[in-house]
Amino acid sequence: MSDSPAILTPGPVAVPGFILEAIGKPVIHQRSAAFMDFFGALQADLQYFFQTSNPVLTLTGSGSFAVECAMRSFFKAGDQVAVVAMGKFSQRWLTYGKAIGLEVIPMQIPWGETLSPEAALELAKAFPGIKGMVLTHCETSTGVAIDLEEISFALKQYRPELLLVVDAMSTVGALPLYMNAWQLDVVVTSAQKALFNPAGTAFVALSAWAVANLEIPASDDALHLGHYWKYLSQGSFPFTPPTQLLYGVARALQEVRREGLPARWNRCQQLSRLFKEGVESMGGELFGLSNAHNMTAFSFGKHEQDQLRADLFAAGFELAGGQEGLKNKIMRIGHFGWVDEAVHKGCLAALEKLISKN
Amino acid sequence: MSDSPAILTPGPVAVPGFILEAIGKPVIHQRSAAFMDFFGALQADLQYFFQTSNPVLTLTGSGSFAVECAMRSFFKAGDQVAVVAMGKFSQRWLTYGKAIGLEVIPMQIPWGETLSPEAALELAKAFPGIKGMVLTHCETSTGVAIDLEEISFALKQYRPELLLVVDAMSTVGALPLYMNAWQLDVVVTSAQKALFNPAGTAFVALSAWAVANLEIPASDDALHLGHYWKYLSQGSFPFTPPTQLLYGVARALQEVRREGLPARWNRCQQLSRLFKEGVESMGGELFGLSNAHNMTAFSFGKHEQDQLRADLFAAGFELAGGQEGLKNKIMRIGHFGWVDEAVHKGCLAALEKLISKN
Repeated sequence: MSDSPAILTPGPVAVPGFILEAIGKPVIHQRSAAFMDFFGALQADLQYFFQTSNPVLTLTGSGSFAVECAMRSFFKAGDQVAVVAMGKFSQRWLTYGKAIGLEVIPMQIPWGETLSPEAALELAKAFPGIKGMVLTHCETSTGVAIDLEEISFALKQYRPELLLVVDAMSTVGALPLYMNAWQLDVVVTSAQKALFNPAGTAFVALSAWAVANLEIPASDDALHLGHYWKYLSQGSFPFTPPTQLLYGVARALQEVRREGLPARWNRCQQLSRLFKEGVESMGGELFGLSNAHNMTAFSFGKHEQDQLRADLFAAGFELAGGQEGLKNKIMRIGHFGWVDEAVHKGCLAALEKLISKN
Repeated sequence: MSDSPAILTPGPVAVPGFILEAIGKPVIHQRSAAFMDFFGALQADLQYFFQTSNPVLTLTGSGSFAVECAMRSFFKAGDQVAVVAMGKFSQRWLTYGKAIGLEVIPMQIPWGETLSPEAALELAKAFPGIKGMVLTHCETSTGVAIDLEEISFALKQYRPELLLVVDAMSTVGALPLYMNAWQLDVVVTSAQKALFNPAGTAFVALSAWAVANLEIPASDDALHLGHYWKYLSQGSFPFTPPTQLLYGVARALQEVRREGLPARWNRCQQLSRLFKEGVESMGGELFGLSNAHNMTAFSFGKHEQDQLRADLFAAGFELAGGQEGLKNKIMRIGHFGWVDEAVHKGCLAALEKLISKN
């Protein structure tokens, strides 16, 4: 991997060799007893990852695919659903909700700002008919997180039956998230984020309340989580699963178990602090609230950000750029991959060299 | 792999080491120029694989998922569509068609028999209002193929506008199939068949007529091929693709190009003949018409087939069993994986030993 730059984008992330090795294990038939045993064990590890005692569905596809499935499965055309948009990615759930006919109650937060627990509660009170709320734990286009614990506490205390659907794509495994304790109903993540795996699988954890609200479609429906749940409740899956990718995920979860989630969360936070402080000490600016410790969005004012990013890439560090209105205005780095202090320090050093030169 | 049995099921198939190595390549960002170049080259190789000059869509999911997407994308509730069922798998398209509200014209062929070009034409003539027909090139539950070239010729001569949707899951790359020349409109295959790759990706080739009939949905719709086509026509994809799995597929296609499709088809046929003759020479019976050279369904009359299969497994060869009415009545072996004469001869020798013992 020496001639490829280090991927430090907030997903996809670099995949360590031991994951790729696991993916390269001999193929076994997906209906064999050996695979079924493996699939059962994976379920337990996924429950640990989400900190839940309830089912976690395994989907073949991207994280966006999984969020779309969740929205279609729990809400029907005409349902009133609040959707909080605070950047490019959460905006997509708002657009998607409208597209599938939901009566979307939009909550637009300026890019770089966050949703407060008070504002979330006010929204729920202003629209007592909403069936649920779609939240994004960390908006990766801006590097801003919400206080999911407090928001959920406020909402569930007010209306326990509210279905909370959380896009936690870049946060499960990176930021503290206790699905059971925080009373979250539907939490979605994907393999190419804090599971440091290649893209191709996504996971949807359901609360008991979510399961109680999940209809089972009469026939095959690849977008309906009830279909996946029907099979999972029998220890199985509706479609041939991507066996090799799941080996990689299982291997990552083994590593997560070994290190322990709190230790991983803590490490992510340390790297985030290291990087944020480094940027500021060099005269850079953190974007907006910049409260998420799974990633950092930042800029160096007098430079062309995209040029700086291209130079960083040439120096061996791949970061992501800004999107839409933030194009060429920020850079974005993830701290949740299989990364360490060394690569963060290396990236900061390369940045320092570049900004002092120009 | 010495302690795993050789997978000889008609999908999934054993994945050779060089494919797993390709899958293990360093991850690059799916929006990077390097990945976009790779994705463009993959398109050309897929076109060769399907023998088409028209677009081939790449889906994350199983082959069944892709067929379901195809049925939903080209047919709407109320459309009259003929579906030919001749075994467990093709029966699913019939059930699925009804479930999504199509006015399904069912054509039931007894398991082990095939659809003749004459019968296909008669069906089309009897129902002049059908918008399309769903065909299965090889029904892998029975080991029976249809004469796709003749059937398509008869149908297209009679009604060129008929949309021909073909489940060619276990045949593209294994049996001769010329998408353009045969005027097929929608052809579906998946990675874990004659592409000797792990499961997780599926491919849908479209004719120009299919593209002309494909609506572009107004918003994200993971089940609608129009959505994938909209992005592919701009050289892109709607969802984060499973980058590593696609490296494996590209590697396989490189191998297919090197050997050439006709040579591969021929090799598959040689292995099929070798195996079928071997079974018959030992007193075994081929199931039904047994005209497919990508696989063989067979039995040894006086034996418990599932026991024989378990013994074969213990001897190092994994075959599939019969399904539904054929449970414990047949065994099924694929000839389209990354397999050679040696493993086929080894399997026959093990079979001979087992049947002579009991």
